[in-house]
Amino acid sequence: MTCLRLVLTPGEPAGIGPDISIQLACHRREYELVVVADPEVLTQRARQRGLALALDIYDPVQPPEPGIPGRLKILPLEAPAPVTPGRLSPANGAYVLEGLRRSVAGCLRGEFAALVTGPVHKGVINQAGMAFTGHTEFLAGLCGSSQVVMMLAAPGLRVALATTHLPLREVSDAITPQGLEGTLRILHRDLKQRFGIPEPRILVCGLNPHAGEGGHLGREEIEIIEPVLETLRTEGMQLLGPLPADTVFVPRYLEKADAVLAMYHDQGLPVLKHLGFGQAVNITLGLPIIRTSVDHGTALNLAGSGPVDSGSLEAAVKAALELAKRQ
Amino acid sequence: MTCLRLVLTPGEPAGIGPDISIQLACHRREYELVVVADPEVLTQRARQRGLALALDIYDPVQPPEPGIPGRLKILPLEAPAPVTPGRLSPANGAYVLEGLRRSVAGCLRGEFAALVTGPVHKGVINQAGMAFTGHTEFLAGLCGSSQVVMMLAAPGLRVALATTHLPLREVSDAITPQGLEGTLRILHRDLKQRFGIPEPRILVCGLNPHAGEGGHLGREEIEIIEPVLETLRTEGMQLLGPLPADTVFVPRYLEKADAVLAMYHDQGLPVLKHLGFGQAVNITLGLPIIRTSVDHGTALNLAGSGPVDSGSLEAAVKAALELAKRQ
Repeated sequence: MTCLRLVLTPGEPAGIGPDISIQLACHRREYELVVVADPEVLTQRARQRGLALALDIYDPVQPPEPGIPGRLKILPLEAPAPVTPGRLSPANGAYVLEGLRRSVAGCLRGEFAALVTGPVHKGVINQAGMAFTGHTEFLAGLCGSSQVVMMLAAPGLRVALATTHLPLREVSDAITPQGLEGTLRILHRDLKQRFGIPEPRILVCGLNPHAGEGGHLGREEIEIIEPVLETLRTEGMQLLGPLPADTVFVPRYLEKADAVLAMYHDQGLPVLKHLGFGQAVNITLGLPIIRTSVDHGTALNLAGSGPVDSGSLEAAVKAALELAKRQ
Repeated sequence: MTCLRLVLTPGEPAGIGPDISIQLACHRREYELVVVADPEVLTQRARQRGLALALDIYDPVQPPEPGIPGRLKILPLEAPAPVTPGRLSPANGAYVLEGLRRSVAGCLRGEFAALVTGPVHKGVINQAGMAFTGHTEFLAGLCGSSQVVMMLAAPGLRVALATTHLPLREVSDAITPQGLEGTLRILHRDLKQRFGIPEPRILVCGLNPHAGEGGHLGREEIEIIEPVLETLRTEGMQLLGPLPADTVFVPRYLEKADAVLAMYHDQGLPVLKHLGFGQAVNITLGLPIIRTSVDHGTALNLAGSGPVDSGSLEAAVKAALELAKRQ
């Protein structure tokens, strides 16, 4: 079995991204992990945390090799402003995005088998004058993908989202027949091709409470969701719904499903994070590359101070490896 | 200890309400249960299900007495149309509402210690020409309560809602400073007075994903929710938030809280039902009476056919008794 080479972007340098990256490096790895970061940031953070860390400059010409505890391959990238744990600096916003650009370019040309991302801070990137609504949308732009799907996975549950980072008042209008059909096609295809599920069974939530209760609590189910499901069922997709979001997640439904499609962020993710916090992984579907991510934020107040939970990063790496092996 | 007298409305007669009421009657009870229903409906359903059931006409003059297995006190009320399990009849819509009216009147004059309700079918009541958005709102009208709060409880979690049965596109505008303040006052007061929690700790969700992420994903948190929380905190209320809905429900938050306030139905109830399905109870706060309810629907397809899960009704009765004992 060949050794896989993953690329990791730690994300916001003032957050716990560097911490969890270093913690990951403490373990033996059967894969090669290349971190795109400022070596000084990692070295300093390791010192602050009292962890041993040796950095080896990444050389794309060398074949990938399993990771040694306490050592990490690094693709160096200079952070323009000094990094202090917990203190955001808009001057480093461009550095965060540049790390993503280099990593995606490497994935697209086949240099890396998958991209794993740490948490970024949207606010500080926007403050720096760069429009940024989230990793998912930014990566879609870099890869030239017209539509992508954000999916979170925890042990026993996968939840994909029909809309992602939108104010709640914009959600209803964002549910369109075209968008929903595209989302379901991507979800169905990636469950088959990337996850190896021959006939994916998908539970689709309604938009309104009680899935609209026959039109009494909203008509999007009747006018948009049901017609899309009908069309796709004629192509053989196994789609159950639209179902009330407060019954979809009970065990007797989940047992029969490979994924749930929620119509919006807070309809689907509270259950997933309740179930899987610390072990949940964010996976972007519809990209030409494999990308997984932690499911948590930058946790600025914990950066540089002591052991943090790196469970989600470990799970993201594990998911990336599984997906990469199946390619 | 005196014997408590509860009143039970089975709800939609063509649904599983009669089934679960009869199943409840099979057990010994330390309280008196008075069912408001058509005796013929219950007798026929018991026969269809092969369950023994004897009905005793309820006499308000007699003191309450513990329930005997297989016997049930009944406050008779005639259903105008024949009842066939699974078949809705708008002609019985008024019967369902009249049962609620009589029960509430009895609670208000102190005849019953609490009201427990089975599932109704909103659609058929509306078809019958009576505007009905849900039990909670109907009971508020009967009791003359200007504002009530719907709360669901499962073992280890209570979730109250700032808005209830609204199309999703109407939710944002329904979050007002006055409404939210009223909801929090009722929730706080009832947690103290009815649930006996001296200093309730409440987690408040944001409206938007990531609780608006500092205004990048909506401004209701900044403009409405935070100012309300600030005001109420000066009165000594322990309110944490606005918090992202997908982090509120992780164990380390829930451990520190007596209740979560979600801004809308599908933000709060998926987790609650995931955790507690079959044991979740709906409790209406802000009424002058105690009212609890099952957390499930009419399940028309299961009515009259075989054993159904009466766990939620049993939990609703148990919750009603606990609340009544504390009065």
